[in-house]
Amino acid sequence: MKKVGIAILGLGVVGGGTYKILSEHREFYKKIHGVDIVVESVLELRKERALSLGIEEHKIASNIAEVCSNPDVDIVVEVMGGVEPAKTFVLSALNAGKSVVTSNKELFCKYSHELENAAKKNNCGLFYEASCVGGVPVIRTLLDNLQGNKILSMMGIINGTTNYILTKMSNDGASYEEVLKEAQKLGYAEADSTADVEGYDAAYKLSILSSLSFHTKIPYTKIYREGITGVNALDIEYGKRMGYVLKLLAIGKNSDSGIEVRVHPTFIKCGHPLAGVNDSFNAVYITGDSVEDVMLYGRGAGALPTGSAIVGDVIYCATHDNFNYSTFKNTASAAPSTKFVTNFESAYYIRLSAKDKAGVLSKVSAVLSKHGISVAQVVQEDDKKSNGVVPIILITHLTHEKDVNKAVDEINSGELANVDSVIRVVS
Amino acid sequence: MKKVGIAILGLGVVGGGTYKILSEHREFYKKIHGVDIVVESVLELRKERALSLGIEEHKIASNIAEVCSNPDVDIVVEVMGGVEPAKTFVLSALNAGKSVVTSNKELFCKYSHELENAAKKNNCGLFYEASCVGGVPVIRTLLDNLQGNKILSMMGIINGTTNYILTKMSNDGASYEEVLKEAQKLGYAEADSTADVEGYDAAYKLSILSSLSFHTKIPYTKIYREGITGVNALDIEYGKRMGYVLKLLAIGKNSDSGIEVRVHPTFIKCGHPLAGVNDSFNAVYITGDSVEDVMLYGRGAGALPTGSAIVGDVIYCATHDNFNYSTFKNTASAAPSTKFVTNFESAYYIRLSAKDKAGVLSKVSAVLSKHGISVAQVVQEDDKKSNGVVPIILITHLTHEKDVNKAVDEINSGELANVDSVIRVVS
Repeated sequence: MKKVGIAILGLGVVGGGTYKILSEHREFYKKIHGVDIVVESVLELRKERALSLGIEEHKIASNIAEVCSNPDVDIVVEVMGGVEPAKTFVLSALNAGKSVVTSNKELFCKYSHELENAAKKNNCGLFYEASCVGGVPVIRTLLDNLQGNKILSMMGIINGTTNYILTKMSNDGASYEEVLKEAQKLGYAEADSTADVEGYDAAYKLSILSSLSFHTKIPYTKIYREGITGVNALDIEYGKRMGYVLKLLAIGKNSDSGIEVRVHPTFIKCGHPLAGVNDSFNAVYITGDSVEDVMLYGRGAGALPTGSAIVGDVIYCATHDNFNYSTFKNTASAAPSTKFVTNFESAYYIRLSAKDKAGVLSKVSAVLSKHGISVAQVVQEDDKKSNGVVPIILITHLTHEKDVNKAVDEINSGELANVDSVIRVVS
Repeated sequence: MKKVGIAILGLGVVGGGTYKILSEHREFYKKIHGVDIVVESVLELRKERALSLGIEEHKIASNIAEVCSNPDVDIVVEVMGGVEPAKTFVLSALNAGKSVVTSNKELFCKYSHELENAAKKNNCGLFYEASCVGGVPVIRTLLDNLQGNKILSMMGIINGTTNYILTKMSNDGASYEEVLKEAQKLGYAEADSTADVEGYDAAYKLSILSSLSFHTKIPYTKIYREGITGVNALDIEYGKRMGYVLKLLAIGKNSDSGIEVRVHPTFIKCGHPLAGVNDSFNAVYITGDSVEDVMLYGRGAGALPTGSAIVGDVIYCATHDNFNYSTFKNTASAAPSTKFVTNFESAYYIRLSAKDKAGVLSKVSAVLSKHGISVAQVVQEDDKKSNGVVPIILITHLTHEKDVNKAVDEINSGELANVDSVIRVVS
């Protein structure tokens, strides 16, 4: 039976999960896939962590050179995260002729071109299903199943931490700060949660997914990014009453106007398949010109779900010689002809504090109308008046961001009302 | 540039969609996939249908031998449906050294072993993503993404016609017969709808999906099958009020007790991701030992969504030489060691017509309890009394089918109540 040796770089949550899956399923894979997959080496500075997982001491490497020169290692699994030293290690492995399976979204998003060129040059496999949305099978779906489509759009809830926080805020009416603290205590959010709550993690994943979808590298720096730190529990509550749930949504669109990529808090109409994606679950909703709408739903993170994606790639790599996906055409930047849309078209939720005077609503509407914005839904809460100020909540029809910004500026420069929140809306 | 010639057998709905996608995207595929995919031949008796799609007359073959001997044809797409002549044609193509892409669930479910053996013998590709659930990427997800998992269970809404009918019945409170007639008029159901409404179509797909999931051939004859022709609008209404929606569910489970495969109307708890899958949308909900829960959602039928799956396979086949999926281990029947579970474990919805006498509910409960069945939810509708008969609706905790059958027989043999409906329930 063919024997394939694995090295795992990093025994954190995902590395530990990957080791557990590989070691517990070894006999199963021999029987089902006809290949004996053995972890031959791990690179982990915390030796006791490796030993506690049951890894024999002689398999614990002390540096990357040892891994790369080990003739028993065929596939290197990189699950360290971050750019360095992961990048150096992955390039070393590829240059040593090892195939690589990675879950590292930041590395792959920023340096896919270098990694892909190295893989090509050395005739090695490079697999990264686990880099985006854990156990949700989105990379292969885009590359294989939907490859006959022009992808028109994708919308994803692709960060578990923020979805957990927003779901909690929505269910309990609690503030962002309270829920974040609780999430950190429970281990759902990291002590430094910036990458998650500011939308960087989602932007890295959107960069990879939109590059695959739109067949040109979409650098994450091109992605409009707005996190959830400014989300107000009041808006979640008003949105709910108007039939919407708030999600951190990653959106990619490709149309005649160009490519549009953005990550921001978004109200989604209840009844939309994405509206029911709660807690740490994730989902990607893809629209292709032939397949129409497809949604992929599952665990976007966690030791075993992400480990499942890693191991899927490992078995694929172990059973398909010299197999390579063509992906971003090995470039660092978008094709020169690519146009990026920045004046987004969307519906908008606007919450105002209005002076309790006759005709305020009509004056606000007049300003919106002047900028070509028409209103789809209004709630005016006279019973919530305090200090002579009444909340008014509007949801607009589709309009353009620049017009909304101009209208908001004009409203705020007057005496009658002040705009407290503006949130994009998906129906 | 590599040129790959396609033949399409059958220009029905899916064949027409496939031709449209291939011809309209030809330049796109050249640019993106680096391959020129050209339809070189079609086999369709209705010549005018081929001509109306814009196919040149010299490409219309008059028999399968002409297709098989055409040196320009590399891949044969079979989208005729049914066993014969599709089976003969597919085997002829494989024996002539052509790779095959098929959407034919009945053929693949019944004769996968013959087709796979022929593909292997002739070193040809055999692809069948389109055979199950149209544009929903379920085959490749099982084969590639989840191959590191032991699949514990799958539940699918995998027939569009019945889901359309049940959604309509639920929304409009209409009877099965009314909605079926309307669906036939609108083209959502065929004139002879037996394969759909009696659950055969779902059983063929479940046979394929559970064979892939559980790594042994699951013949469709082993699948318990119950269609929707007996569904009563009253039960849909009661279920709704108790928080459930009725779906034709295909269920596959693999546990220490054995393999359990069944297709039947099922109440699903609102809030479950499958409960929101409406109209002609389909979804498969898969639970693996590592990935946990994954749901794949999309269009399960239709010219372009199913065509998208076909073309995904065509491009894959055109860009990967000698690539074959290992699937059911080329056998016609389940491994001899496979145990099939027939005494299902489930929760049950039971609707009774009870005589309006004191103590009826307690006597019914006593019978259930005697058979080890405990009740989770009860509705007794005294205001719905007619002719001294009152409806009682019960939902049980998890129990076994044989015990439910015994309890129902015992209730029906008495004087106090009659069981009108028994429907399995998923929480």
